[in-house]
Amino acid sequence: MTELLPTFLDSLLTDGELTSLIGTEADCAAMLRFELALAAAEAVVGLIPRQAASRIIEAAQTFRPDLDQLGRGALKDGVVAADFVRQLRVHVGEPEAGHVHTGATSQDVIDTALALKLGPVLALFEARLGAVISALDRLKADFAGEPLMGRTRMQAAIPITAGQRIAVWRGLLDRAAKALVEVRARNLIVSLAGAAGSSDKLGHQAEEIRHHMAAALGLSVPDYVPHAARDRIISLGDWLSQVTGALGKMGQDIALMAQNEIGEVTLAGSGGSSAMAHKQNPVRAEVLVTLARFNAVQVSGLHLSLIHEQERSGAAWTLEWMILPQMLNTTGTALLHAGNLLASVTRMGSPSSA
Amino acid sequence: MTELLPTFLDSLLTDGELTSLIGTEADCAAMLRFELALAAAEAVVGLIPRQAASRIIEAAQTFRPDLDQLGRGALKDGVVAADFVRQLRVHVGEPEAGHVHTGATSQDVIDTALALKLGPVLALFEARLGAVISALDRLKADFAGEPLMGRTRMQAAIPITAGQRIAVWRGLLDRAAKALVEVRARNLIVSLAGAAGSSDKLGHQAEEIRHHMAAALGLSVPDYVPHAARDRIISLGDWLSQVTGALGKMGQDIALMAQNEIGEVTLAGSGGSSAMAHKQNPVRAEVLVTLARFNAVQVSGLHLSLIHEQERSGAAWTLEWMILPQMLNTTGTALLHAGNLLASVTRMGSPSSA
Amino acid sequence: MTELLPTFLDSLLTDGELTSLIGTEADCAAMLRFELALAAAEAVVGLIPRQAASRIIEAAQTFRPDLDQLGRGALKDGVVAADFVRQLRVHVGEPEAGHVHTGATSQDVIDTALALKLGPVLALFEARLGAVISALDRLKADFAGEPLMGRTRMQAAIPITAGQRIAVWRGLLDRAAKALVEVRARNLIVSLAGAAGSSDKLGHQAEEIRHHMAAALGLSVPDYVPHAARDRIISLGDWLSQVTGALGKMGQDIALMAQNEIGEVTLAGSGGSSAMAHKQNPVRAEVLVTLARFNAVQVSGLHLSLIHEQERSGAAWTLEWMILPQMLNTTGTALLHAGNLLASVTRMGSPSSA
Amino acid sequence: MTELLPTFLDSLLTDGELTSLIGTEADCAAMLRFELALAAAEAVVGLIPRQAASRIIEAAQTFRPDLDQLGRGALKDGVVAADFVRQLRVHVGEPEAGHVHTGATSQDVIDTALALKLGPVLALFEARLGAVISALDRLKADFAGEPLMGRTRMQAAIPITAGQRIAVWRGLLDRAAKALVEVRARNLIVSLAGAAGSSDKLGHQAEEIRHHMAAALGLSVPDYVPHAARDRIISLGDWLSQVTGALGKMGQDIALMAQNEIGEVTLAGSGGSSAMAHKQNPVRAEVLVTLARFNAVQVSGLHLSLIHEQERSGAAWTLEWMILPQMLNTTGTALLHAGNLLASVTRMGSPSSA
Repeated sequence: MTELLPTFLDSLLTDGELTSLIGTEADCAAMLRFELALAAAEAVVGLIPRQAASRIIEAAQTFRPDLDQLGRGALKDGVVAADFVRQLRVHVGEPEAGHVHTGATSQDVIDTALALKLGPVLALFEARLGAVISALDRLKADFAGEPLMGRTRMQAAIPITAGQRIAVWRGLLDRAAKALVEVRARNLIVSLAGAAGSSDKLGHQAEEIRHHMAAALGLSVPDYVPHAARDRIISLGDWLSQVTGALGKMGQDIALMAQNEIGEVTLAGSGGSSAMAHKQNPVRAEVLVTLARFNAVQVSGLHLSLIHEQERSGAAWTLEWMILPQMLNTTGTALLHAGNLLASVTRMGSPSSA
Repeated sequence: MTELLPTFLDSLLTDGELTSLIGTEADCAAMLRFELALAAAEAVVGLIPRQAASRIIEAAQTFRPDLDQLGRGALKDGVVAADFVRQLRVHVGEPEAGHVHTGATSQDVIDTALALKLGPVLALFEARLGAVISALDRLKADFAGEPLMGRTRMQAAIPITAGQRIAVWRGLLDRAAKALVEVRARNLIVSLAGAAGSSDKLGHQAEEIRHHMAAALGLSVPDYVPHAARDRIISLGDWLSQVTGALGKMGQDIALMAQNEIGEVTLAGSGGSSAMAHKQNPVRAEVLVTLARFNAVQVSGLHLSLIHEQERSGAAWTLEWMILPQMLNTTGTALLHAGNLLASVTRMGSPSSA
Repeated sequence: MTELLPTFLDSLLTDGELTSLIGTEADCAAMLRFELALAAAEAVVGLIPRQAASRIIEAAQTFRPDLDQLGRGALKDGVVAADFVRQLRVHVGEPEAGHVHTGATSQDVIDTALALKLGPVLALFEARLGAVISALDRLKADFAGEPLMGRTRMQAAIPITAGQRIAVWRGLLDRAAKALVEVRARNLIVSLAGAAGSSDKLGHQAEEIRHHMAAALGLSVPDYVPHAARDRIISLGDWLSQVTGALGKMGQDIALMAQNEIGEVTLAGSGGSSAMAHKQNPVRAEVLVTLARFNAVQVSGLHLSLIHEQERSGAAWTLEWMILPQMLNTTGTALLHAGNLLASVTRMGSPSSA
Repeated sequence: MTELLPTFLDSLLTDGELTSLIGTEADCAAMLRFELALAAAEAVVGLIPRQAASRIIEAAQTFRPDLDQLGRGALKDGVVAADFVRQLRVHVGEPEAGHVHTGATSQDVIDTALALKLGPVLALFEARLGAVISALDRLKADFAGEPLMGRTRMQAAIPITAGQRIAVWRGLLDRAAKALVEVRARNLIVSLAGAAGSSDKLGHQAEEIRHHMAAALGLSVPDYVPHAARDRIISLGDWLSQVTGALGKMGQDIALMAQNEIGEVTLAGSGGSSAMAHKQNPVRAEVLVTLARFNAVQVSGLHLSLIHEQERSGAAWTLEWMILPQMLNTTGTALLHAGNLLASVTRMGSPSSA
């Protein structure tokens, strides 16, 4: 991948764990899982010979796609799937090669592979969300009763407690955690509908094949043709931005609380300055605001992709590919920073109460 | 309201029914309903005298706020509520004036008034969504079996039927209609939490007051302090853009189908040109794309507003006021155009089959 | 126009002077000016009879378009121009009616009318920008030497002077004012290119006609066909957001300076609260942030419209109509608020120096 | 850098040449050039000893920053500069170490390094723009006279020539090429203003130091303090989106022309499908639309960053770091695709004329 950001900003702006979940290897593995599950399911219903499925599954053990060739294929076709299938067929060899990918299309592979990658990503995010919520519970236990100035329109209003503000942060995250159930249900699905969504080469067994695949892959079967209907992607992007927005609100609050004259929070180990060694900056709090704004901007790109013309839009689909990984990365990074930021809080409350 | 668009574009770009649901009068009526329900509920629990509530309710019958004065108040305070309450108090007169708005704050009035206005708006949209879905069912009944060229990446792929494409459109709308349940549950809520969200002047009866109000107003009571937690607004904006995106996909498809050389749809009464009298333009189809893009852009503004600092952010809240009515209007307009567009379809299918 | 915002928010969120510059009447007047200049120019070069031009110009004096009819036409055609021309032709009467709008197309009328409306709007904004810059000069004269804490990453850094911060605000506005020259040059142009941009009915005299029109209308003649090339609109939108962004930075700074514990600025007559009579809110400062964010969001919609397919895109063009007036309004409103906000500053500088 | 996209999409979605211009090494080299030019300039004016500058310049030859350490520093400080300077000081050694970075701040290093990196990037883009324009001239030479159907609102209007459509594409790119002059002038500047923009440790020689640095670095000296004034970044982002928008319009047109029934363009070597071997997809044309939409979305994030609070905003500045490289990459990629797409055009014009 072209190096657009210097690596030394990785710690600040990227989520290192995502590489193994959505990078090149993960993607190839997910596409292969799709093809294997497809072959197995098609063998069960009799659409392809059982021995073809066996050979495909056996060959897959040693299948190592040529990445350069995949790259050339992706450029030519606008999507990697055709070349991936071609390479897999060569690797499987005759006479079973022709049974690979029977009745499926590029979008079936790519979209199902996305669902397969999303599973562990969403599990990771859920765990991190839980950790942030726990960190808030720790803050609540420690500081809930501390006095805090309630502030509206950037002005002191009336005294509240630290617990009240923490409760707002926690509520936003609680509701995001609950909303994950629906996001997962909508996104962790098998896509299998063939060249133009009509499942024409899968025949009357299409639904049965999907159900076999879903069982094997830990996904569910949608009650609609998912190719050109991208509303589930929107729901995912909206959720990611809901998470970063909630964390951004918390970050903004903490950055405001950490202002010198206000001093309503103390953070251990905040960042310094190249010009002023004494200065302590609430770096993670600010970055949470950045990441929230970033996702708020991106979400508009995903919504645009809902206008997905005809049976498959290269223009709209490719835009998803560009934006969704960025939003996943931003969300993962924000969750990490939030956990660390809350862990660094050593005091909350009005300074006069310290 | 400042006239930014010439009135002759209203029919194309605005939803005339919304004025009566969210315009000045509707807003004043909703704010008044909040104050009356608050007084009534506070009288029931004994926070204010019963006769105060009676007087407030009686006086409300003849309350006609001075709009110019409200405007001056809104400019001064950044929100109309303070002046609205002041005028209402004057109208109620002594000695009960002081019991108006007891324990509430601006955001309680404004946010609850929003919920009250949203009720009928969402009902209207639901009805229109149903009408569009019915129109699709009519198309399905008439043309489902017609052959259509399936198209992927703007190229002919394999033949499908008109019914398959209609089913994609319908599925997107069906799911949007179902998602409305959740949007409604999240948004049709009573906001009542006082100056800085701590319900400090409502005492231990705060929850009871909220439940009385909710019952009177047909809303529900949230299990969180809603002032600075704007995730419900996001869910509403996301949904509005989900609806317009679904309609925009349909509009884009129809505009492509209506191309002269392709001729896969015939629309009665399409628009003309000042230079070419013979030309028939698929105006409503194109406008659906426009409205979808508009909402896709706006949704990013609402997501930004999730970063709502401290107990109440003037900057973030006011951005919601600017964007949400626009999105409601765009959605309402798109639903109207979609219904009329589908009603104008006199033929669907490949031209060779005509 | 559908009333989406209650009128009492006009003072906060709209620029009342714009109605007379870009509303219905202004639009009709601008379209009529286009048709008259066209007829006059075409008569000069001999494309239409001189007496036809005379009759058109005479008839225009009493031409009052039927707005309801225009609305029906706009809905049918997706643009008001065809019906406007039709009504004008009826009003001109035979035998000259046919000479109205000779060789022009809808986009010629609408885009030139936009240029005609933009002239006074940009002049108004330039004057207001000048007033804001003057207000900054007044602040500079009064408070430039006052000590202020320099703040980086929301933390106190080293002492600076109020003059340094004011200089940053002023510089942003100075550069915006200078950039207006280019925006004006690009946007105040005659559009005249006929049905599909080929000026086919204007013949070899097309350029001469354009120059006559430009002279009469105070516009210039572009060296390209402007129909499908929307880069000038982008440059306008970018500039509007540059202005509101600059004012938003100033507003954000002032809102932060006005925080109670920081007290680096005193504002006369700030807004109150319905719950806390003692509270003074920096309403205009916050609204400047809101308006800047609003325009930052919208600018993305205009950039999308650069993807203007073929010779004329209804979808892309209509999106401009929805967004540009909003951005003009936001910019005008922000300039008004900025002037008033700066006029209300009675003190700047660290509170210890007060 | 975290691998968010599989490497096999690089050829489709990334510009490989950018890594060497804006990646880790390029960034370190640019930061080092800043520090060397600073030391040299400060020695000339006598702010630091000449031998200190000599030692710093000598030591720089062998300076290889520890990237892991830089990463830890960036996370702690929110910016890499402080640790970069610390490492450089260690490498320079005593007694000259203390003269490194005299009077400068993090933002001086980072923003000047950005300007240094932008120089070759903009030169690259200018060359590619020139190549695309040349490719259009080739098309014009070959096909300008071919008949083409002029299309408005997605409908056939009147016949035009291929040359007319090519001229629209070319005009958009010509104007973008011309606008680069201004973008370059605004962005290729030295930033040197110290901790809070007051150049406090540079004294009366600040301007002289800047001019020496500018001469050495091939940059110019701005007439304002650039830290918190981000309008030049906006102008850069707007320009990048102007370029991709122009290319996106061309891509959209070509994708529409390439539709089977329309056949107004023939592209050699278009992409295939995993399900339909016979199908030829206009991949690059579609990707141009994707990249244009992507940048149109991102531009809103840069405009948000104009609201850069106080003397330096971590939240706003970091958002620039996330978005700007993405936009550079998108623009570079679009220019490459556009050149290749146009080179693949073997025919333009109405099919009946073939």
